[in-house]
Amino acid sequence: MVSFASDYIAGAHPAILKRLEETNMEALPGYGTDKYCERAKEKIREAVGIPDADVEFITGGTETNQVVISTMLHDFEGVVAAETGHINTHEAGAVEFTGHKVLPLPQKEGKISAADLKALMETFYGDENHEHEVFPGMVYISYPTEYGTLYSRKEFEEISAVCREYGIPLFLDGARLAYGLASKACDVTLRDIAGFCDVFYIGGTKCGALCGEAVVFTKHNRPAHFMNSVKKRGALLAKGRLLGVQFDTLFSPVDPRYNLPVLLYEEIGRYGIGMAERLEKIFRDRGYEFFLETPTNQKFIVLRDEEAARLSEKIAYGFWEKPDDDHTVVRLAASWSTTEEDLEELEAALG
Amino acid sequence: MVSFASDYIAGAHPAILKRLEETNMEALPGYGTDKYCERAKEKIREAVGIPDADVEFITGGTETNQVVISTMLHDFEGVVAAETGHINTHEAGAVEFTGHKVLPLPQKEGKISAADLKALMETFYGDENHEHEVFPGMVYISYPTEYGTLYSRKEFEEISAVCREYGIPLFLDGARLAYGLASKACDVTLRDIAGFCDVFYIGGTKCGALCGEAVVFTKHNRPAHFMNSVKKRGALLAKGRLLGVQFDTLFSPVDPRYNLPVLLYEEIGRYGIGMAERLEKIFRDRGYEFFLETPTNQKFIVLRDEEAARLSEKIAYGFWEKPDDDHTVVRLAASWSTTEEDLEELEAALG
Amino acid sequence: MVSFASDYIAGAHPAILKRLEETNMEALPGYGTDKYCERAKEKIREAVGIPDADVEFITGGTETNQVVISTMLHDFEGVVAAETGHINTHEAGAVEFTGHKVLPLPQKEGKISAADLKALMETFYGDENHEHEVFPGMVYISYPTEYGTLYSRKEFEEISAVCREYGIPLFLDGARLAYGLASKACDVTLRDIAGFCDVFYIGGTKCGALCGEAVVFTKHNRPAHFMNSVKKRGALLAKGRLLGVQFDTLFSPVDPRYNLPVLLYEEIGRYGIGMAERLEKIFRDRGYEFFLETPTNQKFIVLRDEEAARLSEKIAYGFWEKPDDDHTVVRLAASWSTTEEDLEELEAALG
Amino acid sequence: MVSFASDYIAGAHPAILKRLEETNMEALPGYGTDKYCERAKEKIREAVGIPDADVEFITGGTETNQVVISTMLHDFEGVVAAETGHINTHEAGAVEFTGHKVLPLPQKEGKISAADLKALMETFYGDENHEHEVFPGMVYISYPTEYGTLYSRKEFEEISAVCREYGIPLFLDGARLAYGLASKACDVTLRDIAGFCDVFYIGGTKCGALCGEAVVFTKHNRPAHFMNSVKKRGALLAKGRLLGVQFDTLFSPVDPRYNLPVLLYEEIGRYGIGMAERLEKIFRDRGYEFFLETPTNQKFIVLRDEEAARLSEKIAYGFWEKPDDDHTVVRLAASWSTTEEDLEELEAALG
Repeated sequence: MVSFASDYIAGAHPAILKRLEETNMEALPGYGTDKYCERAKEKIREAVGIPDADVEFITGGTETNQVVISTMLHDFEGVVAAETGHINTHEAGAVEFTGHKVLPLPQKEGKISAADLKALMETFYGDENHEHEVFPGMVYISYPTEYGTLYSRKEFEEISAVCREYGIPLFLDGARLAYGLASKACDVTLRDIAGFCDVFYIGGTKCGALCGEAVVFTKHNRPAHFMNSVKKRGALLAKGRLLGVQFDTLFSPVDPRYNLPVLLYEEIGRYGIGMAERLEKIFRDRGYEFFLETPTNQKFIVLRDEEAARLSEKIAYGFWEKPDDDHTVVRLAASWSTTEEDLEELEAALG
Repeated sequence: MVSFASDYIAGAHPAILKRLEETNMEALPGYGTDKYCERAKEKIREAVGIPDADVEFITGGTETNQVVISTMLHDFEGVVAAETGHINTHEAGAVEFTGHKVLPLPQKEGKISAADLKALMETFYGDENHEHEVFPGMVYISYPTEYGTLYSRKEFEEISAVCREYGIPLFLDGARLAYGLASKACDVTLRDIAGFCDVFYIGGTKCGALCGEAVVFTKHNRPAHFMNSVKKRGALLAKGRLLGVQFDTLFSPVDPRYNLPVLLYEEIGRYGIGMAERLEKIFRDRGYEFFLETPTNQKFIVLRDEEAARLSEKIAYGFWEKPDDDHTVVRLAASWSTTEEDLEELEAALG
Repeated sequence: MVSFASDYIAGAHPAILKRLEETNMEALPGYGTDKYCERAKEKIREAVGIPDADVEFITGGTETNQVVISTMLHDFEGVVAAETGHINTHEAGAVEFTGHKVLPLPQKEGKISAADLKALMETFYGDENHEHEVFPGMVYISYPTEYGTLYSRKEFEEISAVCREYGIPLFLDGARLAYGLASKACDVTLRDIAGFCDVFYIGGTKCGALCGEAVVFTKHNRPAHFMNSVKKRGALLAKGRLLGVQFDTLFSPVDPRYNLPVLLYEEIGRYGIGMAERLEKIFRDRGYEFFLETPTNQKFIVLRDEEAARLSEKIAYGFWEKPDDDHTVVRLAASWSTTEEDLEELEAALG
Repeated sequence: MVSFASDYIAGAHPAILKRLEETNMEALPGYGTDKYCERAKEKIREAVGIPDADVEFITGGTETNQVVISTMLHDFEGVVAAETGHINTHEAGAVEFTGHKVLPLPQKEGKISAADLKALMETFYGDENHEHEVFPGMVYISYPTEYGTLYSRKEFEEISAVCREYGIPLFLDGARLAYGLASKACDVTLRDIAGFCDVFYIGGTKCGALCGEAVVFTKHNRPAHFMNSVKKRGALLAKGRLLGVQFDTLFSPVDPRYNLPVLLYEEIGRYGIGMAERLEKIFRDRGYEFFLETPTNQKFIVLRDEEAARLSEKIAYGFWEKPDDDHTVVRLAASWSTTEEDLEELEAALG
């Protein structure tokens, strides 16, 4: 069955698998100290435009959020997030497992506002009487959000300004960053994001890798003895090369038929967004209602229950929610692995 | 440079990489719910001889120890281990991170004794006055141990008997299990181990996989909602297929030139041990002193400091310890990836 | 200055101090194993009407919530609470410190509804797909609530029924239980509460004691080796007698001028509520607006900012919130320690 | 029955109870912000000779160790302690509960040596290869130790020097500090201890208080927002006055019949040690064997099992250990509450 169930239904981008094979029998040191990790870090520093950024690889997204948040927060602090933020809803309490609270803010289409953030911060720093509360010590945003939406440059500037005003780090979860940056609605660059954020991660798992996320500390703010803290959380991969080789490939130029040196990571985003636009058009041409307008690789469509049931016989999709008794919101995701045939089958299934 | 630095210096066994490539573009559900995970579990159940065992895949060894120990211990309990046990010395406090103490027992060549264990248990259950102490709630052993040694069948029986007497689970860390089972000194089978233990893991990372360990719960004792607990610890891999395909391959027969259906996991052990024996012979023939007699894939040799320095120019090995001011104990590990050429270079380097 | 700032502004009820003095030089064993703890437990079992209830004493309220919640939840579970619940807002993340999430429910005047709770539970148990979420594993309510309101018998029955349907414990925070039970609006008894709840605590600190809360496990559901878990959390008091003597006194009849055997704990509630009613009348007679109608010992009054400032020169009260730019909501609490003179000074201050 | 079972068998020193009574009905703010806490802090600053020391009160000893250690350690660090240290043996894993490992050092009569400490530190800072281990980030010692022994000035200087060399704090558990300082074998003052240590606590519970320990941060090193961290651990007492009044009394001069202004805390130590010496003499005069020579308030005596049984009919003592099949080591503790009559009854019981 054709699947649009998520953007992690396939293995790795073929170029990645090829590199894993080419390097497979090289004897390399463990725990991320190999040359491929080093090269990948160098390329990422170049791509984000910060020559002295600290880059670290972690195997999965929840693990990355858990490690970054719990090593950067002070004991008395929690992390601010949209109430729909992944860390607040779908990570099984991974932040709380480390002893820290997630402080939810109201959201609109998955995004928090600088105004709400500022109001929260003012409450805490306006007077001296918060000994019984959890201090907001970090801001977590996702880009794209869990709803496939994007923060605008202006929103980034405003949120970042509040964080700087109060001296707390801004952390961006870029699990689907490639698709965000490739969206027509995106008005920032990877370098802009590196400038707005104190720490962020470049998602690999949902953007072409078998696994792996690249954390970028932009301001000499990597916690001391970070590798020990990663190990302590069970998150240090013995064969760090698995992550190094993958990110080295993702941040290398794709093959020379391109005039300009496009990185594989960019190409994955560009291709995935192209397929997502075509997927969107297929539904739109047939008059379907969209639950939400999203400019990235996740599309949310309102189906009548019987339509949803019929479609599920031929197409795998994600269940999102029941807006009422007769309808179902479904999520379809495109990615680097979506094919022409997939789209054709979808069209056939919709009739 | 030729490396005997560890048993995780290479990527994956070629048969595994090949299967990852063959299955790469299949659309599969995430988080370990795919058919390859299912098949791998079925094959492992067959191999361990427990048709209804619960099998779960985790990405790394420390992560596995952390997840298993912290989900199986009660709040008031700690885990008993040899003072040289990996969880007590080289996991950066991963067990303690989950709120539990490691209770060290004396060791001999990396092994605990049933007598010491029984004495500890008797202390706790002999009277009623331990409200200020941490109860021993689980026993952790490694096979092979961190010193490359093996528990005998008799030792297994005795330790297992103490655990059963006091109703606490016996957990075996099988990071290098393939090499243990293939050792000439091994007098138990995989099925025996499954019988002795309440939970154990079959190591993938050091035995041919890119990553991955297979946890086997032998007695319907998998903690409830285990997947949530794995996720909560940041340890749930999105593309669970990566682990499923690897273990499906490891527990499939190697190619048909063999008369009997030998599993790849067994073959990896057999081959690695064969190379380790030859490595040992190279040193022994030249009259080197062994720090410890080990029947598995890790060899510990006492070198004069200048010998160690000279060797390190041509051969990568692991530093183990300084027994005195003039000598160095080094560790050399063989594995599935050790080649004839590696051994020849070692011989040449030793002269 | 006269203070209505809280219900813990004074030391202990004089009868308690007297007993502490009388028993002071007795040699008693530590950690709650003394005869006064035993007597107090016996009296509490009698008062709650459950002869085999397990009763345990903990020093403070947040500590009690932390100990009870973290020892009763399973690893994969969180605790459901009103978003205004004390554990969610004013305990500095004490529940999260133990690795568990607080799952907030909407509230009305500090109370959750059985309907909202049932909807949440149905979400979780209606299908099989919650591996990435935190399971609701316990319900926390406070009585009186943080807003001084009370659950009715009907509300208790409904919430308790949902908990029983889904097999999760109902935990009641009774920090101010004496004032709740003495309220004219209260339509349940202490025995009713013991019947509705799986575990609850009878607050001492805010109801006449120097410190101390009595946890009652109503259904043979005290976690195994509970004392070790209390110790592990740093919450085991060496001189447990301090709590035992206090609760022994609180649950003993007050002096014989009463015809009926009224317990000191009841008398404290009765007296505090009487003073609270008079406090309320003082404001009501003068036409002040109440932020909220509360039948217990906390009263919330809306003052113009200049009124609030003027009042604060003579009367200590608690700041609650700013409903708009010109007004302030203040909280005044009465208790066993409120005197006639206090009320007279309040009247004088208000003019 | 007369009891020498511990030094916390009685309530509070009468002078303390008296002050609690005198101040009982004063309306005071909560959580340690009252004037008695302030006064007690001022007096302690004076007594320790550091005018700008930060002083904080915590209810119990294990709680204090847990709070101090877990707020001062970095994420990647553990706390070094004698293997017989209270935090390693009798606090039910309270340090591990906070996610940190206790790193045991060998001990002699309960004491660690500067040499062993230095060797450990050198291992960690001698090379760069400790990413899989727990860093020693703090040193915990107790004074008197769990065996009633004392560090000499020279030992203090040496241990303190190692801590300063490596930049890690030295933390002293002074649960029985009054008895240590009053011992004839003590060659340091309270001010000396404040100079040697980065943080230490002055024990109240075992030295005359109902409960309470005073933590002294000597070098502007109190963790930021410490009160929030205390609250987060469930350790913030609502009626902080209970601790403030007690320490205010302990650090006030005893009554004027003394020529010199002796603080009650000093007097408690002096008296308790005097009684301990007489207790020791009673056994020594009768030829009993001492398990260990101790210059403080705990005495350890070797009894034949039948002697121990006979004695226990008249005298409560603590069981320490069984050195062989026929003997029992018992612990008898003297304190401020030991009376002439107690000693007479002991003599009578021994015959």
